[in-house]
Formats: sequence, C-alpha cells, structure tokens
Amino acid sequence: MLENQGWTLARRPMGEPSVEDFSLQSVPLKSRVVEGEVLVRNLLLSLDPYMRWRMNDAKSYARPVEIGQVMVGATVSEVLVSEHPGFKPGDTVLGGGGWQEYSILKGETLQKLTGNVPPSTALGVLGSPGFTAYAGLMKIGMPKPGETVVVGAATGPVGSMVGQLAKLAGCRTVAIAGGPEKCALAKEMFGFDAAIDHRASHLGERLAEACPRGIDVYFENIGGRTLDAVLPLLNDFARVPVCGLVSQYNDDGPYEGETRLASLMRDVLIKRLTMRGFIVTDFAEYRDEFLEMAMPLVASGKITHLEDIVDGLDAAPDAFIGLLQGKNKGKLIVRIA
Amino acid sequence: MLENQGWTLARRPMGEPSVEDFSLQSVPLKSRVVEGEVLVRNLLLSLDPYMRWRMNDAKSYARPVEIGQVMVGATVSEVLVSEHPGFKPGDTVLGGGGWQEYSILKGETLQKLTGNVPPSTALGVLGSPGFTAYAGLMKIGMPKPGETVVVGAATGPVGSMVGQLAKLAGCRTVAIAGGPEKCALAKEMFGFDAAIDHRASHLGERLAEACPRGIDVYFENIGGRTLDAVLPLLNDFARVPVCGLVSQYNDDGPYEGETRLASLMRDVLIKRLTMRGFIVTDFAEYRDEFLEMAMPLVASGKITHLEDIVDGLDAAPDAFIGLLQGKNKGKLIVRIA
Repeated sequence: MLENQGWTLARRPMGEPSVEDFSLQSVPLKSRVVEGEVLVRNLLLSLDPYMRWRMNDAKSYARPVEIGQVMVGATVSEVLVSEHPGFKPGDTVLGGGGWQEYSILKGETLQKLTGNVPPSTALGVLGSPGFTAYAGLMKIGMPKPGETVVVGAATGPVGSMVGQLAKLAGCRTVAIAGGPEKCALAKEMFGFDAAIDHRASHLGERLAEACPRGIDVYFENIGGRTLDAVLPLLNDFARVPVCGLVSQYNDDGPYEGETRLASLMRDVLIKRLTMRGFIVTDFAEYRDEFLEMAMPLVASGKITHLEDIVDGLDAAPDAFIGLLQGKNKGKLIVRIA
Repeated sequence: MLENQGWTLARRPMGEPSVEDFSLQSVPLKSRVVEGEVLVRNLLLSLDPYMRWRMNDAKSYARPVEIGQVMVGATVSEVLVSEHPGFKPGDTVLGGGGWQEYSILKGETLQKLTGNVPPSTALGVLGSPGFTAYAGLMKIGMPKPGETVVVGAATGPVGSMVGQLAKLAGCRTVAIAGGPEKCALAKEMFGFDAAIDHRASHLGERLAEACPRGIDVYFENIGGRTLDAVLPLLNDFARVPVCGLVSQYNDDGPYEGETRLASLMRDVLIKRLTMRGFIVTDFAEYRDEFLEMAMPLVASGKITHLEDIVDGLDAAPDAFIGLLQGKNKGKLIVRIA
C-alpha cells in the first residue's frame, strides 16, 4: 500500500489562517482501484483564493472541507493505475487531486492533457483562472472597442488574462495591483495602459486620472476599499462581473461599517445574483407590447388598480410630502381642474 | 394673457421636504404659441417619488429642478391652442405639464389619449408606473411559474401592478407594505398570497415564513432595512430589478452604517448597473470556444502569463497564506513531484 502524505484541515481559521490550521498526515488511500477509477500521482496542485472559503463552515456554492479531510484543489497528475477505458498509465491528466501525493479519482472527473503547451497551463492561463477571465469578461463584461476596463488583482492569473483579453478587444485597460513592483509588471508584461497601486494613498484620485472617460467594465476580484474607489467612476450601463472578493475572504464576520455592503457583495457572488438598475425609458421598444397586453385586462377589470386623487393644485406639496412618508394608497394624482 | 399659477421650487430640502421648500406663484407663460407647440390646461398631475431626487442639486439621470423653476411632473391635459398638426383644441393629452395650471409644450412630447379607459389611467396603471412594473418584472425579473416574487411598496401604483403581473405569470406573490391596512389591501384587492408589514417587528422572520421556498424575484422599490430582510432569503440566480429606493430619497447624504450600501444601491439604480455574480461552471458551454481561441494565442506567446511555482507539498500552507496576503505574483502552483 502506498504511503500517502496529505494536508488535512486541522481547524477552522479565525480571520487569517495560520500553519496550525493545517495538519500534514499520512493519509490512507483505498486499498483497491475499482472499475471507473484511476490512481494518480499528483504532479501539480493549484492554490486559489476560493479555498479560503472552503475552510469555513459556511454555506456556499461548494461544500466546506471537513476537519481532518484533505484540502481540496485542482491538480495535474500522472496516471499510475487505470480502471477507466479513457486513461492509461503515463497519461497526464487534470483533476481534483487535492493537497496530497496520490489520489484515487473517478475517471469521468479527469481530463487528459494534450497539445503543444506545458501541462501547468491547464491550472492557469488555459485552466479555470483563464477561463474564468474569459467567461466573466466576454459574457458578462461584454467589452466594446474604446471602452475602459479596470481589473482588480491585475497581475494574478485571472486578472492578467482579463487585461489581455480586454486589450485584444480594443479597450483601454487599467490594472489595480498591490505595490509598485506588480504595477510595473502589469504594464510591462501584461500590456495594461495604466496601473494603480491600491496600497498607496489617494486611490480614488489616481484611479480617476487613469480613467479619464470613466469605467465601463470593472472586473471585480477584490472587494472592500478598491470597490469604494471604483463605484463613483462607473459609467452609465457599466458592467461589474463579480468574480472574487479576496479582500473579504479572511473576514470572520460582519464588522463596523462594512456589514451590509460586504454581505451584499458576498450574496451577489455566491448566488450569482443579477443586480441591474433600470429606468423605464430603457425599455421603450416594449411599450406597445405592454399596452396591447395590459389595456384589455384593465378594461375588463382583470387588472385592478387604486388611485389616490387629491383635489386642487394647492394640495400638491402636502400630498407629495405624504407620499414620501407612505401616507397615500395607490397612485397619487392631483386633480387640478 | 393667461394668469398661470404654479408651484416652484423655493429651496432645496434637507432630508424630508417641508411646505416652505415650495412657492406658489403666478408663473408667466410665453406670450405666443409658436409652430410645433401646444397650449394646454393641465387636468391631472402625477406625483411620484422620483421627484424628491429632482429637488436635489445632484447628478442623476435627469436634471434637477432649479430654484424658482416650476416643479416637473406628468400631466393629463386638455389642448386649448394647437400649432402642431397632431392635435386640436379639446384633445386630451398626456405630457409633462408640471405643477402648474397651464403649460406650453412641444407637440412631439405629447401623446393623445384614446381608448375606453379613463384618462387618469395614463398616469398610473397604463402609464409610467404600470409600464415600469411590466418592464422591470418581465424583462429583468423574468418570473417563471412556481417562483416566489416579493414586491416592495406593494400597494403603490408600481408594486400593485407587479404583484398582479407576477400572479398572472403563475408565481407566489408576497407584498411588503406599511401598516396592517395596506397589508389587507394587498391581499384583498391585488391578490397577493401574503403580505408583510415592514413597520412591525421581526421583519426577517415573518418574511421567511411567507417565503418557504425562498425568493426568486425581489422587485426593489424601497431600499434600506427591507432590503436587509430580503437579502438572506434570495435564492441562487435570483433577480433583483432595482426600480426605486424610496426609503433613501430623503437622505441628506451618507450616514453611519448606511454609507456604502446606500451609495452602491443608488448607483445601481441611477446608472442601471448590471451586477451579477458568476461561477465559471455556469459557463460550461463556452469552454471549447474559449480553448479554441486562447490556446493558439498562448502557444504563440500573444497571450503571456506568469506562474509562481512553489516546490514541495510541505510549502503549500505557507504559499496559500501568502496568496491571501497578496505575496505571490502570477498563478501560484505547488510542484509536488
């Protein structure tokens, strides 16, 4: 039987995790690889911010790691034993091997790696981070030539891909990164037009200077104070794909002044909520359709409505003040003449 | 020349407006109706929450009313003199006559009222409020049969229409309204399945009881503490059309604990932002498309990427902690074997 070392979750961290939250142990593997399974040696393990959430005992889109369980994670692995027709020993595969040396995995969860790119790209630029960048930017952000795209955590695997895809789409790209070194990297390696150090002072002012035409797409990876700086610069109809909130991942819970926005953003992310303000004129094209549908229903009484009619123009301010206080019922109307 | 009385904005209110913020004056009309214009006697004036914002000197989707200017508003009016081919004296029209007895308006901004419904419906159920309800619910909320739709300000002209449209769409409808009388009205007149008084205590608990399968569509008219109660009950993929934030309209500015969420919601509304969380698996159908596009660009170096490779499984926790602290650059990978 293979000796298998792996990192288990020793305890749930409060705030920032510490080494004591993990435990390196000899982790038993099942004695036999059964039909449909593959025994792999894990070659590369991806570490990603989402894992911090998996260490919490909190409802999310994925189950938390249990205490004593091996930490989860994507791996590039080599097949040692295969009881699945799609794989043979020596194959290089992408899978969820976790933080351990060996894993027995269901073949259907694995993907064989081929092509003329290094296998490690399957964990980064061509893997979940790269695809995350693509999906979030192109399908939600929908950048148009000439627009300004601001990217949080811009030198990370997601952010750096977002910046490059946005540049290819003809946008002005602005990086937000931590420290002068990463800012230089963003511009020199990933081709961002400008880079802002979120640790330096006057974040809002410097971001405004870098975005003279405002912000059309903000690819949210960070949350917290960076979002504060971005919000006033968003243009009408800006799109905010919410991909991550790394500055909030270590939060123990609500804290002063952050509570409500932080929990809102967490919900938007975890539940993939769509929040979109609208003004009725945005939907002008549907007006006839609406009237065709609604008019007969109102005429026949199938749709009822309530009016609160106030007599005389003199009464208008009082009525209006009452409206704001919730005093009226139904549609408030002033009868002038 | 006509004697024309009208309400002008006397001063900008701080918080709740008072009567002293308005001034009833003799408002001069232009001496002559020129080509394309129509002189009308205003019959009905609509009062709506949005007007509160127009009294502030704040950037929004519409210009603020100036001090000394007649308050704006939609009217049902009778044509007295027409220099526009589309209208003749005696016609009943919908227009933006404002808070005054007579107005001279451009014909192109007017809509002739016909049909077998009372003209007042053009300001309510068949006017902007009704159409607002339709557009917000059907085009953003997209209710499906069996879903739960929660409606703020449920007995108002917008909310009452939302509730009825949602019911017609086969949904469970839950009203949020102020006081027991409005709650009774919501159920008896507008057919809501349940109604919650937002002034009573334990709002969250009572809302949870009324929504045993969670909330799929929250039609936001209120903001503030009602939104707090709604957020934890939103189901995955819930839609939140943000139509109004009446509880925030009187705000003078940011205040303790409200600051960030309030300003976020204001932006979502005014700028019609789309906020939508996502997880990469939501976009599985686009994965091949992505790989076809990205792989050659990575292979040719047109897309560059950065990897931070850490040696040894032992180093994983430290590397992971560093990741959360922003210490790494590029895609963090642990080389295990």
